[in-house]
Amino acid sequence: MDMIIGNSQIPIKKVTVNDNFWNKLMEITRKKVIPYQWKALNDQIPDAPPSYCIRNFKIAAGLEKGEYGGKVFQDSDVAKWIEAVSYTLMWRPDSELESLADNVIDLIAKVQLPDGYLNTYYIINGIEDRWTNVMRNHELYCAGHMLEAAIAYYNATGKDKLLNVMIRYVDHICDVFGPEEGKLHAYPGHPEIELALMKLYSITGNKKHLNLAKYFIDERGKYPLYFEQELKKRNEKFHLADTPFKFQYYQAGKPLREQNAAEGHAVRAVYLYSGMVDVARETQDEELFNVCKRIWSNLVNRRMYITGSIGSSRCGEAFSFDYDLPNDMIYGETCAAVGLIFFAYRMLLTEIKSEYADVMERVLYNGSISGMSLDGTRFFYVNPLEVHPFACENNYQLMHVKPERQKWFGTACCPPNLARLIASLPGYIYTKRDNSIFMHLYVGGKVEFDISSSKAVLDVHTNYPWDGKVRIEVEKGAGEPFDIALRIPWWCRNYTVKLNSKTINVGVENNGYVYINKNWIEGDVLELNLDMPVELVYANPNVRENIGKVAVMRGPVVYCLEEADNGKDLHRIAISDQSDFKYRYEPDLLGGVVTLTCDGFEISVESWNEECLYMMNAKKEYKERTLKWIPYYTWANRGVGEMRVWIHER
Amino acid sequence: MDMIIGNSQIPIKKVTVNDNFWNKLMEITRKKVIPYQWKALNDQIPDAPPSYCIRNFKIAAGLEKGEYGGKVFQDSDVAKWIEAVSYTLMWRPDSELESLADNVIDLIAKVQLPDGYLNTYYIINGIEDRWTNVMRNHELYCAGHMLEAAIAYYNATGKDKLLNVMIRYVDHICDVFGPEEGKLHAYPGHPEIELALMKLYSITGNKKHLNLAKYFIDERGKYPLYFEQELKKRNEKFHLADTPFKFQYYQAGKPLREQNAAEGHAVRAVYLYSGMVDVARETQDEELFNVCKRIWSNLVNRRMYITGSIGSSRCGEAFSFDYDLPNDMIYGETCAAVGLIFFAYRMLLTEIKSEYADVMERVLYNGSISGMSLDGTRFFYVNPLEVHPFACENNYQLMHVKPERQKWFGTACCPPNLARLIASLPGYIYTKRDNSIFMHLYVGGKVEFDISSSKAVLDVHTNYPWDGKVRIEVEKGAGEPFDIALRIPWWCRNYTVKLNSKTINVGVENNGYVYINKNWIEGDVLELNLDMPVELVYANPNVRENIGKVAVMRGPVVYCLEEADNGKDLHRIAISDQSDFKYRYEPDLLGGVVTLTCDGFEISVESWNEECLYMMNAKKEYKERTLKWIPYYTWANRGVGEMRVWIHER
Repeated sequence: MDMIIGNSQIPIKKVTVNDNFWNKLMEITRKKVIPYQWKALNDQIPDAPPSYCIRNFKIAAGLEKGEYGGKVFQDSDVAKWIEAVSYTLMWRPDSELESLADNVIDLIAKVQLPDGYLNTYYIINGIEDRWTNVMRNHELYCAGHMLEAAIAYYNATGKDKLLNVMIRYVDHICDVFGPEEGKLHAYPGHPEIELALMKLYSITGNKKHLNLAKYFIDERGKYPLYFEQELKKRNEKFHLADTPFKFQYYQAGKPLREQNAAEGHAVRAVYLYSGMVDVARETQDEELFNVCKRIWSNLVNRRMYITGSIGSSRCGEAFSFDYDLPNDMIYGETCAAVGLIFFAYRMLLTEIKSEYADVMERVLYNGSISGMSLDGTRFFYVNPLEVHPFACENNYQLMHVKPERQKWFGTACCPPNLARLIASLPGYIYTKRDNSIFMHLYVGGKVEFDISSSKAVLDVHTNYPWDGKVRIEVEKGAGEPFDIALRIPWWCRNYTVKLNSKTINVGVENNGYVYINKNWIEGDVLELNLDMPVELVYANPNVRENIGKVAVMRGPVVYCLEEADNGKDLHRIAISDQSDFKYRYEPDLLGGVVTLTCDGFEISVESWNEECLYMMNAKKEYKERTLKWIPYYTWANRGVGEMRVWIHER
Repeated sequence: MDMIIGNSQIPIKKVTVNDNFWNKLMEITRKKVIPYQWKALNDQIPDAPPSYCIRNFKIAAGLEKGEYGGKVFQDSDVAKWIEAVSYTLMWRPDSELESLADNVIDLIAKVQLPDGYLNTYYIINGIEDRWTNVMRNHELYCAGHMLEAAIAYYNATGKDKLLNVMIRYVDHICDVFGPEEGKLHAYPGHPEIELALMKLYSITGNKKHLNLAKYFIDERGKYPLYFEQELKKRNEKFHLADTPFKFQYYQAGKPLREQNAAEGHAVRAVYLYSGMVDVARETQDEELFNVCKRIWSNLVNRRMYITGSIGSSRCGEAFSFDYDLPNDMIYGETCAAVGLIFFAYRMLLTEIKSEYADVMERVLYNGSISGMSLDGTRFFYVNPLEVHPFACENNYQLMHVKPERQKWFGTACCPPNLARLIASLPGYIYTKRDNSIFMHLYVGGKVEFDISSSKAVLDVHTNYPWDGKVRIEVEKGAGEPFDIALRIPWWCRNYTVKLNSKTINVGVENNGYVYINKNWIEGDVLELNLDMPVELVYANPNVRENIGKVAVMRGPVVYCLEEADNGKDLHRIAISDQSDFKYRYEPDLLGGVVTLTCDGFEISVESWNEECLYMMNAKKEYKERTLKWIPYYTWANRGVGEMRVWIHER
């Protein structure tokens, strides 16, 4: 058997982002999203329903009287806030914010029971019922998020209070769950703790933490099914018995090692797969990694939108079936997109292959950040690729699709998820293996890493994604040769590499990267130039929704037509494969974006009387017109209107 | 103000159908559907859940003990059975069937209370609650159907027992509902009795019957809204408060005279509009007829499928909005199609215009009879124009769409509705005004009618809809001139008329008919030849679903592609407007149909790897192939498979 040869993370603290595109988003996250979220946690947003998050902790800690409020997984929003805060502290220390977090952590610690248990829902509502509804009541999910928060805060500040709290909680969980007799042979209804335990293991090195994660992976979906037994014990009917997925909603309809496709609730799925990859890599479990690869391939090659959104079915917020990718009735939850980045990054950590980074990039520049308004104050849960606002209001089956971003949600998972993703962006750019530093994402800024025992520093300049030029200046060499390995993205047909201004010939390796080996010295300049023309992109003809249609990309950015630029009735617009595209950076539009214009067509209604629904031989008449395209992620920032990604091809 | 100049029905008994196409359907209805339905009413179908219909009557009559079974409107199925039986007795006397009906009528009569009330649900469950849930509990709906049955049976057999029972029931209803103080100022939650009362009035001439129908029309939707008051009294929340239509589900959100569009539950809508036209015609109410015309125009020009199916939204089994005509998620209930024929026929009775008969014909040959299998044993509730069976099973939003006709339904409205339509087909072919006989449908057989005081007889020979030749032999003239007026269908671009073998020049009048005036004598032969090439039909470009697509018709028949003939993945098929079509009558296929073949294309998947979802510059490659088309109404008679009406145009 081959070994799994993983590679290592470059921690956020070793990366300084200095990038036109991402600094803006990171700053909005820090200055707008995180403070706004803090207000939400404290029920201080005037027009939004209370979240009850902090209040629940205060009640559970005995500091206030009252009833539990909000959803059963409300604790996780506090966790995600702390986690996002932690990441920002890594690149922008802020003592005020840090002391806010310290106070919340003190509060959380007060809630913990002597046996380590820590969940406000059950502490307030009756501890005797804890762990009796593992399938639906999110205790392990909340624990996982709090664990991620603890680790992030520890990494950011060195403070271990929350970490120790959570290690005690994990000890308790180890007492409750596991293969031993008397323990629950169960696994989370909502995966999340698996990947969190693997993060914990990377800090503690305690096999107990690894083993619990592995147990949750291995036990999942084994018959007799724990969830069925639990339902029986609770005397409850299975609420998903009439859905197409049944227990696969929880990815628990069969053992994970027998699964071949991305199924069920999309967020649960990608969180689970992320933990599964971590376990496979850490335990050198080739079989399990092959399961990950099968599921990955099914997911990205048959069940992913061009924007990187996933989960095509509102029912169950779930994956549906191969090539079923409706553009208007999509679910495409922001959280699922974020989770797909987690999955992709972990695949990449396990095996260097550009396709993993390609997907990461696809989601990052499209279906994830589309979830947030440009000013960071409004959010999408659902990220459609086609919107007809009148239909959203009047078609019952489209009512989950909003043509406008919302202030906040009852289930407020998406905004904080996006916040922690963007705040941790520096951690996704590079990885390292032996004497190679891999650049997966083209983001400007500095990176510091070790080669043997020496420290090397690179300084990257780029205007990506608006431009394919990436200039890497060596600020400090390692005193010995090492590879700078650069991903050649799937969308790039031609590239050049220059070393100290001279073009060098360097081919793409099988894994999709070019390697430039040198004893790098200060002042060396490596330039990658990725050709970035506007491209027409087609979907596999098995995708029923997109047959006869075409999408437009430039570099990693998916474009769309919006009513604000192109008027109503976007369904009548067509383009030909001869269309001539022009691109232009518009600094004052949508926060500064490259827009595209092209010659297009509009199917004319002129020969049609409004009072005629069907006509014989009514050959389509095309009127020529100009079309203007904006990056998909910026849609719905100029009022309510139609939007389309996939356009008819003439 | 202009007068409304109506025209008269030619009763079923005066028409003898001798027609290849319709005789088959009429005989299947008589020999298969009606006996099968009888078994269903008596709970004698092995694998189907009991209907409880006859049993409810027996319990209500005190002949059996037990509880009420089935839906609140179960009585109406018995009524529709009697009505269908009555129509068949008009053209095929059957003493056994008649005595079966007599027995049921005896049973029904036994149920009637001394005050005339007759509804098994409330008689069994507690008469004190009658008329307290007029919005939802279908008492007036059931009364309407029983009234239609009584009138049909009286017309068929001359027996007035059920008619008298129902006149007494109507007397009771007149005591309960009306403008007078102390009466309920209400109207049916499910319209139906309006048109039934108008039928009754045509027999009794009793103004009371007309006035009640008119009251129901005039009162509907007036504020304060009766339904709101009733909900208040019942202390109930409005179950449709969160839907887009609210009280317009019942066409009761505003007064009928202020309505401009076909809205709400489609079956309710077309039943209501039918009664509304009858009232307008009978009372010479131009204003009300204009409302009918506005709604008609909205319905057929913006909200009707090419097959004549209506009701695009599963939510509420309802109309949605202009040009919203999804082919796969359609509701398109068989009953709604049947009801559209009722509406169209009544518009035609009020104003001779070919568009009304065109719609009648469209529904008759397509979206209505598609509801029944060719052998008359299985039925569709929903009539999709595009089916992907795997998606129907796996996409929750498509689960109302069945790729196979079902044996029976819990709400078994559709099969008996189709039965009564087909059994009464002879009544839809002709109408008469003054000295003109109008032939609206081209159905072979004899018709007898009066001109002044003489009887004239025509004998029609045609192989319609497979052939556009219609040969009308005069079997008996009237001794004075009269017009034979023939509809030139919307789909016909060229026609010729021959009188006694000589072509005559005769133009289409504004109303869409050609009039041939003559003192017709025995042996005269009038031949209409409607050119019937295969036609490509386009939808108004406002129909988002059908942009870039084309449908195929020949004469009134809409065609479709089915997997049985064309394999899977019909979404990849395209045709060009240059496609050369051939047609052929296949006597042994699908009960004998004209099929079409043409050169078509298939978008190739060959250059696509299954593991590739998006590709740049993957220009569509077309493979040439032959396509075979079958009449839409015959789909799903050869097992489960894909089907499509609207095909991509290359």
